Amino acid sequence: MSDIITVIAPVNIAVIKYWGKRDEDLILPLNDSVSATLDTSIMCAKTSVCARADFKEDAIWLNGKKESFDSPRLQNCLGEIKLRAAAEKSVSEDFLQRKVHVCSENNFPTAAGLASSAAGYACLVTALAKLYKVKSDVSSIARLGSGSACRSVYGGFVRWHAGINPNGTDSVATQIVDSTHWPEMHALILVVGDTKKKTSSTVGMRIATQTSELLKHRVKYCVPERTEEIIQAIRQKDFPKFAEITMKDSNQFHAVALDSYPPCVYMTDVSHFIVDLIHKYNTASGSVKVAYTFDAGPNACLYLLKDEVPKVISLIKHVFPTSKPESFITGLSSGEEVLSPALMSISEPQVQDLIKYVIHTKVGEGPTEITDGSHLLNEAGLPKTE
Amino acid sequence: MSDIITVIAPVNIAVIKYWGKRDEDLILPLNDSVSATLDTSIMCAKTSVCARADFKEDAIWLNGKKESFDSPRLQNCLGEIKLRAAAEKSVSEDFLQRKVHVCSENNFPTAAGLASSAAGYACLVTALAKLYKVKSDVSSIARLGSGSACRSVYGGFVRWHAGINPNGTDSVATQIVDSTHWPEMHALILVVGDTKKKTSSTVGMRIATQTSELLKHRVKYCVPERTEEIIQAIRQKDFPKFAEITMKDSNQFHAVALDSYPPCVYMTDVSHFIVDLIHKYNTASGSVKVAYTFDAGPNACLYLLKDEVPKVISLIKHVFPTSKPESFITGLSSGEEVLSPALMSISEPQVQDLIKYVIHTKVGEGPTEITDGSHLLNEAGLPKTE
Repeated sequence: MSDIITVIAPVNIAVIKYWGKRDEDLILPLNDSVSATLDTSIMCAKTSVCARADFKEDAIWLNGKKESFDSPRLQNCLGEIKLRAAAEKSVSEDFLQRKVHVCSENNFPTAAGLASSAAGYACLVTALAKLYKVKSDVSSIARLGSGSACRSVYGGFVRWHAGINPNGTDSVATQIVDSTHWPEMHALILVVGDTKKKTSSTVGMRIATQTSELLKHRVKYCVPERTEEIIQAIRQKDFPKFAEITMKDSNQFHAVALDSYPPCVYMTDVSHFIVDLIHKYNTASGSVKVAYTFDAGPNACLYLLKDEVPKVISLIKHVFPTSKPESFITGLSSGEEVLSPALMSISEPQVQDLIKYVIHTKVGEGPTEITDGSHLLNEAGLPKTE
Repeated sequence: MSDIITVIAPVNIAVIKYWGKRDEDLILPLNDSVSATLDTSIMCAKTSVCARADFKEDAIWLNGKKESFDSPRLQNCLGEIKLRAAAEKSVSEDFLQRKVHVCSENNFPTAAGLASSAAGYACLVTALAKLYKVKSDVSSIARLGSGSACRSVYGGFVRWHAGINPNGTDSVATQIVDSTHWPEMHALILVVGDTKKKTSSTVGMRIATQTSELLKHRVKYCVPERTEEIIQAIRQKDFPKFAEITMKDSNQFHAVALDSYPPCVYMTDVSHFIVDLIHKYNTASGSVKVAYTFDAGPNACLYLLKDEVPKVISLIKHVFPTSKPESFITGLSSGEEVLSPALMSISEPQVQDLIKYVIHTKVGEGPTEITDGSHLLNEAGLPKTE
């Protein structure tokens, strides 16, 4: 049996957004957040780890390129896992002293701003936890890598509790329902061409925390109420309620980013066009059939139930003509449906390639160990691609 | 002496924004607002009014076209002026019974979303007040035509008090300082090409009032504090403080519009590009030299002191190439200044015609009666253009 551990871990897209930290070093958020974990068969991070006595140094390769292991976030994650292993006495003192090799890659474009760091750190921490045989919940360790990574440690729908302890021990993720609870929940990620320079999430959150008056109100009043309401909607599989809260919370997150000084703007004219299109679609449908949510970038994530997918795909193809029809829709396969004249008329086709491509996916499971031997490290503990 | 009264009235651009009504019929706002009145020699509404015994009906011509007098806002304004005249016994009962003719036009494009209704109703109400010899403050009557029109009744810097009376009698404008207090205050209005359909201010405010959680916080806490601070900055001619509050309040107004459900979005990618450019300019200048503010549309209004104008005009010409250089800058004349390499480098030139034209103006006086006989109505009381 190989001493290499390989894990795949999912992306998650929040429906109640995380924005603003109460502690930057420990990555402790101002408010709770809620997300759906997306199917690893469509988008995932994959990480192999290995610890051997003959390794000379800790080493990491990301997407085929050797990177520095000095990053504080990386050091924090490895250090905390080792502390946990020592406390749990899960491995020998000798094993703890060994250097580790880490090789990680995403099966989707990292440049597209699709929560790659959440998947990446959830994957790394889960792989290390297996390597060091840590049994306890590691979401608080994934959080040290990238805040929202703590949510990718579980499948289904997940809540990240902000916690109140200054040391962050209670800032952990818990699963609301697993991926079998609402299997009809699908997602369409509309990747919008983006040439704008953006403020990083870390900087954007810092500015918002320091300057936005509205963020304080959001954190104190809006998020606590919405969190309880959306959890109830998820448990009851109440799509219209789930969708309404999701859309309102996305808008409010971007509102507080705009209320920052200087303002942070992540959505573009195309993003707002999509928002408008979804509201028109829902109005024409007579009920709320699709929800949009936007992270700190222009891409839209649409949540919708499986039955609605063919119609929405047809609408997207109608409104957003593409120069690459063969690769425009990726991920899960889905049919198309002839649009009613009412739906056809909600928007004229726009100029070509406003949307680069669409990823069709669904809610899925948490990190999983890969046991088929398809490791990213070879027998020498080095990247197979090197 | 002619029995025709002709008045010109100014546009005003708010620095503390009005957004949301506590009473839609009476046009009573949720919060105080503060604006600068802009020079009528650059942009103004002009209105002639006349009341004669032989007129068969109340009639109004707007920008050369006969319009219905049935609009409730128009009826309210005329009705209130007549009530006030009756109470003040300023004209005879016979005069009050006469029908009126109104002819009004703007000397700037009404389509550009440049507060034309504020200038128009301030002009109408001031002209009617002179016609009926009403002596008392008419800002509360202008308010019935278009909320922000009450601010255009005065020159200089003006505060619109939200008031608390249900009947709106205390929702009036007062002058903070007149136009001679800070004569160095100039404005550049950047007219952005706009092809997007927008939500009207009336509808946008209604949605915000009904749905935005953040608006409540803004109204209760942010605006009262900012109003006092900006009035102090205006009195002390503290430009950096004035500018910072102006920019923050513009951003917050657009944030609450975005927090509405469905969201209202008035700024475009070009608007946000201008915001970013101004922040970069201020950073490169080492202090806050320019403020931006955006109403319910994509156009930017920049406030800046006279000395800064040549440099900023040069920057705008550098960053926003135009296909119509001869008519790109209108209004007050101003030199240009060679930009330092540091300022040249804050932005590359963008694609042509992102900005249609720029209006250079300054803070000016309130409505003024025109006594040179250049009425819009002829001797028969009909539009001269007909």
